[in-house]
Amino acid sequence: MSGGAQVRAGIVVTGTELLTGLLADRNGPWVAQQLGGLGVEVATLLCVGDRPDDLDSSLRFLASQQVDLIVTSGGLGPTADDITAEVVARFAGVELALDEAMEERIASILARFTHLSRFDAGAMRAANRKQALIPRGAATVDPAGTAPGLVVPVDGGPTVMVLPGPPRELQAMWEPALATAPARAVLDRAHPYVSVLLRLFGLPESEIADTLREVGAEADLSPLEITTCLRRSELEVDIRHRPGAEPVRDKVVAEIAQRHDQYLFSSDGSSIDDQVAQLLADRRIGLAESCTGGLLGGRLTERAGSSAYVAGGVVSYSDAAKTELLGVPAGMIERHGAVSPEVARAMADGALHRLEADLGCAITGVAGPGGGSEAKPVGYVCVCVTTAGGAVLARDLVLPGNRADVRERSVTLAMHMIRQLLGEGADGGRTRTPSGGR
Amino acid sequence: MSGGAQVRAGIVVTGTELLTGLLADRNGPWVAQQLGGLGVEVATLLCVGDRPDDLDSSLRFLASQQVDLIVTSGGLGPTADDITAEVVARFAGVELALDEAMEERIASILARFTHLSRFDAGAMRAANRKQALIPRGAATVDPAGTAPGLVVPVDGGPTVMVLPGPPRELQAMWEPALATAPARAVLDRAHPYVSVLLRLFGLPESEIADTLREVGAEADLSPLEITTCLRRSELEVDIRHRPGAEPVRDKVVAEIAQRHDQYLFSSDGSSIDDQVAQLLADRRIGLAESCTGGLLGGRLTERAGSSAYVAGGVVSYSDAAKTELLGVPAGMIERHGAVSPEVARAMADGALHRLEADLGCAITGVAGPGGGSEAKPVGYVCVCVTTAGGAVLARDLVLPGNRADVRERSVTLAMHMIRQLLGEGADGGRTRTPSGGR
Repeated sequence: MSGGAQVRAGIVVTGTELLTGLLADRNGPWVAQQLGGLGVEVATLLCVGDRPDDLDSSLRFLASQQVDLIVTSGGLGPTADDITAEVVARFAGVELALDEAMEERIASILARFTHLSRFDAGAMRAANRKQALIPRGAATVDPAGTAPGLVVPVDGGPTVMVLPGPPRELQAMWEPALATAPARAVLDRAHPYVSVLLRLFGLPESEIADTLREVGAEADLSPLEITTCLRRSELEVDIRHRPGAEPVRDKVVAEIAQRHDQYLFSSDGSSIDDQVAQLLADRRIGLAESCTGGLLGGRLTERAGSSAYVAGGVVSYSDAAKTELLGVPAGMIERHGAVSPEVARAMADGALHRLEADLGCAITGVAGPGGGSEAKPVGYVCVCVTTAGGAVLARDLVLPGNRADVRERSVTLAMHMIRQLLGEGADGGRTRTPSGGR
Repeated sequence: MSGGAQVRAGIVVTGTELLTGLLADRNGPWVAQQLGGLGVEVATLLCVGDRPDDLDSSLRFLASQQVDLIVTSGGLGPTADDITAEVVARFAGVELALDEAMEERIASILARFTHLSRFDAGAMRAANRKQALIPRGAATVDPAGTAPGLVVPVDGGPTVMVLPGPPRELQAMWEPALATAPARAVLDRAHPYVSVLLRLFGLPESEIADTLREVGAEADLSPLEITTCLRRSELEVDIRHRPGAEPVRDKVVAEIAQRHDQYLFSSDGSSIDDQVAQLLADRRIGLAESCTGGLLGGRLTERAGSSAYVAGGVVSYSDAAKTELLGVPAGMIERHGAVSPEVARAMADGALHRLEADLGCAITGVAGPGGGSEAKPVGYVCVCVTTAGGAVLARDLVLPGNRADVRERSVTLAMHMIRQLLGEGADGGRTRTPSGGR
């Protein structure tokens, strides 16, 4: 990316428990997002154990990558394996010195926890003192827990911002840390990005690659950082740039919108869940799920207030449940099979009527791994959305992946079909097999 | 921990989206846990963007840290920013060459998705070919999606195992990757830990810490690496050691089992889902869900073959659905409220009878953030399990956390109550409020 010297950062998260896989790091992504918002490019995120040598190598590695800022989290506690302040001081080539005012502050914090009084007072004092040892020249950040944060300028190297490991403490101390003089000296040089997020459904990633290649042949895309990412079977295209690159960004957005119009469903950051919730605002939906076993209901009721538009649903895993609770004729199941467009339609209508809803949505499919046939292989799914006004949107297709994939993709497909039917006005009485959203 | 030369590994997760905070990495922790189980110590986990230089520096950094194995994830897709194979080939000092058999295999995978046929065949073929470029001398792993995995031996350096970014693909390809000759050459030198995993439900973590402290006062626990971790509101106690430490491990396990008998539900690695599936083997369950909106159904139908024991369910999000589909008397809802032990019981009985099942399970609760009252605050949940034989197990309690937590914990609580009722023999006709599992 061009446009002024980039401010680059590295993040080091410490904690042996992160390297055994027992716990996933939450601080790295959070700090990365904050830095991104400030216009700082995060070059590398490292997780290392609580070993001085490993932390030291990480700092040296990031320095060799020419980062301007290093943010560390963890290793500021009172125990022997809390080694961050010491290692950072050595990295900066300065001594640790007792900050008596900080020692007092920590002592007064500890005094608030009267239940600690039954522990050894001498050990507590030693621990307290250890946490008040500050690298000379560092700015300090008042503790949110008991550990102070540090912002350590390094002669000829990156400034190191040292924060504690508990996410609540780290997040509370973030803004005060940014406000310290050594942090400002680095961050004032950063130029925040502008970013646009496009979301598409049903388009292979290669098509976007193709479009970008073609647009790139006519225009210089180097001011843009474009990242594509598949998530929940939707394709996200994240376009970031410095102020000034708006014209070329708009060209890319316009080309994607024009070429992939029927797949592009969001360019304002809204998710399909946001859109469906909004479209359902003054309607009520009834669900009939077979192979997804309740996942569509679980997803639609994720957000608060969903009881206003989710009437309920039936998980008709057995044929008897389809007949009994949704009124699907037994003869229809026998004739067409439980996984068929006909049964999906009858399930959707059943959910619509039995739940006294404005909209019915049904999913029936072969999630696998067993149960497939040549005509209806594993992944074959029928989804149908119907409305009280008589509109119908029906799809049947083979979804790729294993059982979990097929189930998740079926739910996402249903979400998009609900959006499509509602977005187009749910009153036409038309029966269509749409070409979009494949 | 003592015993033999340690095999060390580094993990490199690629993806610019991980450094903008858009997505949290799931592969690093998973791979770390797998490697730990194989007796490999993970020294460092790095997340880097999709830039060749950053990936290259990461590989060189890990090589300088003397790791024996590097596992990478991501960057194997068809687009221009998918650069892992190329960078790893350069790191290994070998050329990329087209693997025609692999090209065929990818083409046949793509051909299965006939709905893609209307997209540009040329672009698809070019993308396909890019994914079939293999560093000379590398072992390949068949794709779970469309990208093959690679295991690349490096002359005088660490072996590099290259896997795709989507977690399901990476996980599916893990075992085949381990089975390749270059992977075995490294991993055969590792001495796996022996590990025992205990799972408890309803016990605070501090109680386990207390028990370990007391056992540690009598016995030397230093040969054991004990990690506790809360997951899905269950407490996992992972005890690892080198062969030889079995006696002290057995002592710890026995003490936990004896002191926390009513909370310990698994010491053989089985999950609550495994146990419930096994207990339901020749029975059928009907579900009635309110605040969980289908999540219990979604969870019970996660595994293949669940249609044998899941009859179906009703998501009775509205009062009308409770009355209409489950036969809960409207007067009862009015008298006791939709979230009440009485309604939970009636919902469970309704599910049992309407779905012609042997067992009914109902969840109704206040998931929040709104809708709470003094008597029934956010988090108040009533769960009831009943059987055709007349056994009833009922609980009502306040669960901590936000909307998502309350919903997830309600489902886990229901799973444990199903286990408890079935495990104790579902034919007693007793009505009890159990003391366990709180």
